[in-house]
Amino acid sequence: MERYLILFTFLGSVIALLFAALTAKKVLKFSEGNEKMQKISQSIRKGANAYLKRQYSVVSVFFAGMFVILLVMAAFGLLTWFVPFAFITGGLFSGLSGFIGMKIATLSNARTANACQQGLNRGLRVAFSAGSVMGFTVVGLGLFDISVWFFLLNFVFKLSPSEITGAMLTFGMGASSMALFARVGGGIFTKAADVGADLVGKVEAGIPEDDPRNPAVIADNVGDNVGDVAGMGADLYESYVGSVISASALGVSAFQGEIKAMAVPMILAAIGIVMSILGTFFVRTGENIEQKLLLRALRRGTNLSAVGIAVVSLPVVLLVLGKENLGLYFAILSGLIAGVLIGLSTEYFTSDTYKPTKRLAATSETGSATIIISGLGLGMKSTAVPIVIVAVSVLISFFVSGGAASSATGLYGIALSAVGMLSTLGITLATDAYGPVADNAGGIAEMAGLAPEVRERTDALDSLGNTTAATGKGFAIGSAALTALALIASYVDKVKSVDAAADLSFDIINPLVLIGLFVGGCLPFVFTALTMDSVGKAAQSVVKEVRRQFKEITGLMEGKADPDYASCVDLCTKASLHEMIVPTLVAIAVPVAVGMVLGYKGVVGMLAGATVTGFLMAIFMSNSGGAWDNAKKYIESGTHGGKGSDMHKAAVVGDTVGDPFKDTSGPSINILIKLLSMVSIVFATLVVNYSIF
Amino acid sequence: MERYLILFTFLGSVIALLFAALTAKKVLKFSEGNEKMQKISQSIRKGANAYLKRQYSVVSVFFAGMFVILLVMAAFGLLTWFVPFAFITGGLFSGLSGFIGMKIATLSNARTANACQQGLNRGLRVAFSAGSVMGFTVVGLGLFDISVWFFLLNFVFKLSPSEITGAMLTFGMGASSMALFARVGGGIFTKAADVGADLVGKVEAGIPEDDPRNPAVIADNVGDNVGDVAGMGADLYESYVGSVISASALGVSAFQGEIKAMAVPMILAAIGIVMSILGTFFVRTGENIEQKLLLRALRRGTNLSAVGIAVVSLPVVLLVLGKENLGLYFAILSGLIAGVLIGLSTEYFTSDTYKPTKRLAATSETGSATIIISGLGLGMKSTAVPIVIVAVSVLISFFVSGGAASSATGLYGIALSAVGMLSTLGITLATDAYGPVADNAGGIAEMAGLAPEVRERTDALDSLGNTTAATGKGFAIGSAALTALALIASYVDKVKSVDAAADLSFDIINPLVLIGLFVGGCLPFVFTALTMDSVGKAAQSVVKEVRRQFKEITGLMEGKADPDYASCVDLCTKASLHEMIVPTLVAIAVPVAVGMVLGYKGVVGMLAGATVTGFLMAIFMSNSGGAWDNAKKYIESGTHGGKGSDMHKAAVVGDTVGDPFKDTSGPSINILIKLLSMVSIVFATLVVNYSIF
Repeated sequence: MERYLILFTFLGSVIALLFAALTAKKVLKFSEGNEKMQKISQSIRKGANAYLKRQYSVVSVFFAGMFVILLVMAAFGLLTWFVPFAFITGGLFSGLSGFIGMKIATLSNARTANACQQGLNRGLRVAFSAGSVMGFTVVGLGLFDISVWFFLLNFVFKLSPSEITGAMLTFGMGASSMALFARVGGGIFTKAADVGADLVGKVEAGIPEDDPRNPAVIADNVGDNVGDVAGMGADLYESYVGSVISASALGVSAFQGEIKAMAVPMILAAIGIVMSILGTFFVRTGENIEQKLLLRALRRGTNLSAVGIAVVSLPVVLLVLGKENLGLYFAILSGLIAGVLIGLSTEYFTSDTYKPTKRLAATSETGSATIIISGLGLGMKSTAVPIVIVAVSVLISFFVSGGAASSATGLYGIALSAVGMLSTLGITLATDAYGPVADNAGGIAEMAGLAPEVRERTDALDSLGNTTAATGKGFAIGSAALTALALIASYVDKVKSVDAAADLSFDIINPLVLIGLFVGGCLPFVFTALTMDSVGKAAQSVVKEVRRQFKEITGLMEGKADPDYASCVDLCTKASLHEMIVPTLVAIAVPVAVGMVLGYKGVVGMLAGATVTGFLMAIFMSNSGGAWDNAKKYIESGTHGGKGSDMHKAAVVGDTVGDPFKDTSGPSINILIKLLSMVSIVFATLVVNYSIF
Repeated sequence: MERYLILFTFLGSVIALLFAALTAKKVLKFSEGNEKMQKISQSIRKGANAYLKRQYSVVSVFFAGMFVILLVMAAFGLLTWFVPFAFITGGLFSGLSGFIGMKIATLSNARTANACQQGLNRGLRVAFSAGSVMGFTVVGLGLFDISVWFFLLNFVFKLSPSEITGAMLTFGMGASSMALFARVGGGIFTKAADVGADLVGKVEAGIPEDDPRNPAVIADNVGDNVGDVAGMGADLYESYVGSVISASALGVSAFQGEIKAMAVPMILAAIGIVMSILGTFFVRTGENIEQKLLLRALRRGTNLSAVGIAVVSLPVVLLVLGKENLGLYFAILSGLIAGVLIGLSTEYFTSDTYKPTKRLAATSETGSATIIISGLGLGMKSTAVPIVIVAVSVLISFFVSGGAASSATGLYGIALSAVGMLSTLGITLATDAYGPVADNAGGIAEMAGLAPEVRERTDALDSLGNTTAATGKGFAIGSAALTALALIASYVDKVKSVDAAADLSFDIINPLVLIGLFVGGCLPFVFTALTMDSVGKAAQSVVKEVRRQFKEITGLMEGKADPDYASCVDLCTKASLHEMIVPTLVAIAVPVAVGMVLGYKGVVGMLAGATVTGFLMAIFMSNSGGAWDNAKKYIESGTHGGKGSDMHKAAVVGDTVGDPFKDTSGPSINILIKLLSMVSIVFATLVVNYSIF
């Protein structure tokens, strides 16, 4: 009977997708404004489409190759036949999430700019609705994928619960691979264009941001869409799906195969969707551009959703799992609360309304070196708070779930806390994805020469987007850490299922575990270095192209001739697609290599090491980057000499260093740490049977 | 009978101290040059003395406080009565090592400058001899402390081998605490003075480095001595002693209390001393200032010592442990080789004769932001090589020592590889400590207005010092990681001795271990942030003081009036002593707090986490810092626009960011990771009996 419960998940996914479709229809009813605005928006759309098209064609080669490898492994009995297909669907849906998000974002930018002509609240509603389409598409597709696979595996192929979750875990690997490509590729694109446009346009040529004479300006706007929208969509699709299926898998092993434990995370996700949809109706504001009021408008929506989930999941846990498992409810609650607290901590460290960023801005007085040193210090220091929050949340979820008696239920509790944290994803993502839409709207307002108050309104919306983006990042990192821990536990289960006699102690003093820990710890460092290098290389090629156009196109600076926008878009596309391959291959090859040499004990060490340093590096880089960005904005608002002063120049250096930190390397690490686990799970049979140690 | 073997250690220590004394006498025979040189050297000496005097008085308050706490704990039966006294002697000798090194360094700087007037080889010999005094004082005092305690505990108090090593481990905590104070305090002093002198003198006032008109110039030279000499001396004293006693302790538990296993690391250290002394006689060069030739001169000495140790320790292992334990010899060998390889890797990533630093210099073409991004990337990427070297060395030492059959002997093997790596410390430290002497000599040559070729020679010696300093740092980090691992094993032994029934599995999936791992991983980040902040704050106060003097002292810029050097020295002293307290207290309080909350399982997780991220952060920061420094020098040599160009300015920003990286935060982390273990060991009884979990 209980297995029919899970079909509620299907219902949840349909509701989410319907809501997304209706919202999209509503957004598209708004006008795109005058011809000029339409033309600009079209250019951005064209560039983003061209990028995604080429990205997908590159990625499909990878997926085809992996598909063949997985098929061969299945033929040798190292995998079940479901794995290659699950892998493909995971990748497909993850890519689709990003694609739909990007489509609606590029269709809404001009509409947001136009709506801002009529008022701030109208602008907010359009941008936020576009974000909602993205948010609910991600959660809808995620649950759709999960429930369809469940239906097939359970009712058609009639597998046992543990076989079902085993097979389902593997489409996580597809989703993670796609997400990593999207995040890394999009992240390189957006930062290369941004840095290139700023360095030559703002600094060398002295023209304002988003000036239509800047050849990289369209590429910059395209970048917001392919990086911050499509990349983020694929990323959070992967987090969402990963947390739900790893919790289900751990539920099955904690409750000896009882399907009800598998149902809880899925139903929880469905509840989250409904509550998030309700939350979106509370997002509205007046005409005051003050950040506090705007932030309150968005917060109202997310907070109400969170409260709703907290209330409704209590009877669900009691009904499905019985009151003897009430503790698991508190695990869910601890995840929900931890998510909110991490968001607040991120805000404290990166918003210029608090001391840390104000102090950072003050260090610009002694030059760029001191602002860099202090910014790095700020990010490093800021890791302590989320670490403690996650630690406490892990401890609570483990012990309230009865981990002291059975570590399996304790681990299930940890996984449920991740699901709890991510259950508000629909609306959190909406507030997050709305940022790039507002950013684009600002660009269009500038390029189309709209009235100053329009730009003022889009700027207010954009600034708010920076804060929600930072909060969203903290949230993504926190859930990634919890999910990664759950995936490590799933890996151990997997090893047990491959070899019932395997020694499942992973003593930290065992040299294989220890070395795995070192190697895993090193991965986020190397990965960060690779992605930062890529941004550097790609940005340098953009710098050269922009300089070339300024020099060779006569009449460009006077506004008499148009720059060649397409060549910059093309350059960013090529560079980012080229550069995204190595980091992703590293993320897939290393866990297999480590497994083959050090065995499954080394793999567990590696996953733990990567999770710890990955979590630290991701927070460090997101917060340093966010703080530099806002310190610059704070100075631009007129403190420490204001725009154009030496202090401002120092702050621009900080912001430029922070760009790849917060938008390329940092967010990619979240995906990295989960992909490592997914790959390890898929290759577990190979490793357990054929490793050297 | 075998316990008399250990007294060879005493002989080794006496030889080392005698050699240091004789070398010191030889150095002091050289002339300090003309009156001006003597006067400058005297000012530096005075400043360094004043700093150390005040540092020791601050530190002694801490030691007195800790002594009382330990006494109280001993009264409650939580410690043996030896611990408080052992703690004090460790601190005393560590401080003494730094003090003597600093004394001789400040007495040799003018002598080196004067010797350079007569020729390059003569200059090298004086500077290197000064370094040797430091190197052999450190190893001599280290072994002296060890052998005297052994004598007392064994022959006077007649303790059992495991009681002996247990008590001896605790003076490691004293040494580590002192070392951390010295490194952090000295590191803040030297970089605050350096940054302050450069920012105002070089950049704002446009006067050359080491110009006598710069009020911070004496403070800068004092800083080289209190940071790079006294700090490093205390630091490596602690590494050396830590590795020997942790290996002895693990030997006792691996060989069921047989004293011969305890003897091996000590005898190995004594062999290292003799071979290092022989090596010093091979350090001489011609009159060619080419770096390669100079480097070869120093390398000849260290390499011959290493070969000597490799040859002589074979029969020693065979004689003492028997040929059934031949595997342990290979563990020692793997450590020796790993040390050399880490040094080479550091050189590759930081020397401008190789691609990475050359490429880094090229990124200055697009400004300071890109050189910062690339430098951070370089450092992060460079972590991979030492990680693999250490991983392979750990694997080899564990398995050749028979770790597969008994993990205790395997851990002993790992500890022995650390001793093997550090056995060449006498001469490695000599090549390392010679750098600041040469640096000071250059400053004196400039201030005293000596002939240009003298400055050329001191510059050549100083440049070489940068390379050897980088190698030395790689070496210090590698040995710190291995020693930290050995100390974790010692901690586990300690827990066992406190509670024989303790559950000694430290499964990485246990939530207490896991959370410990997260908290421990976070510590190096927080610690780095604290120390970098401190440098920033102290530097800003120096900047203000230098600006004030330039403004208020009339005739200063024209050379008609003397600046007030003493006020800058005083400022740096106050600031650094004030700032060194919090980071050190964090390092001592956190392991106790973690232990009281999470119990000994959490402590083991914390130690492993801190070792992994500490190792990564230390390498990352040392190599980024070294590469920025050398990229700047490479540009100054005439590439990418040369001195004064925009590219040079960008490189100066990189170098300034790198300063606290490589000379304050990075090297302090080595000490941090060992101090955490030491503190945990000393407080183990308290934690095991009274923790919450």
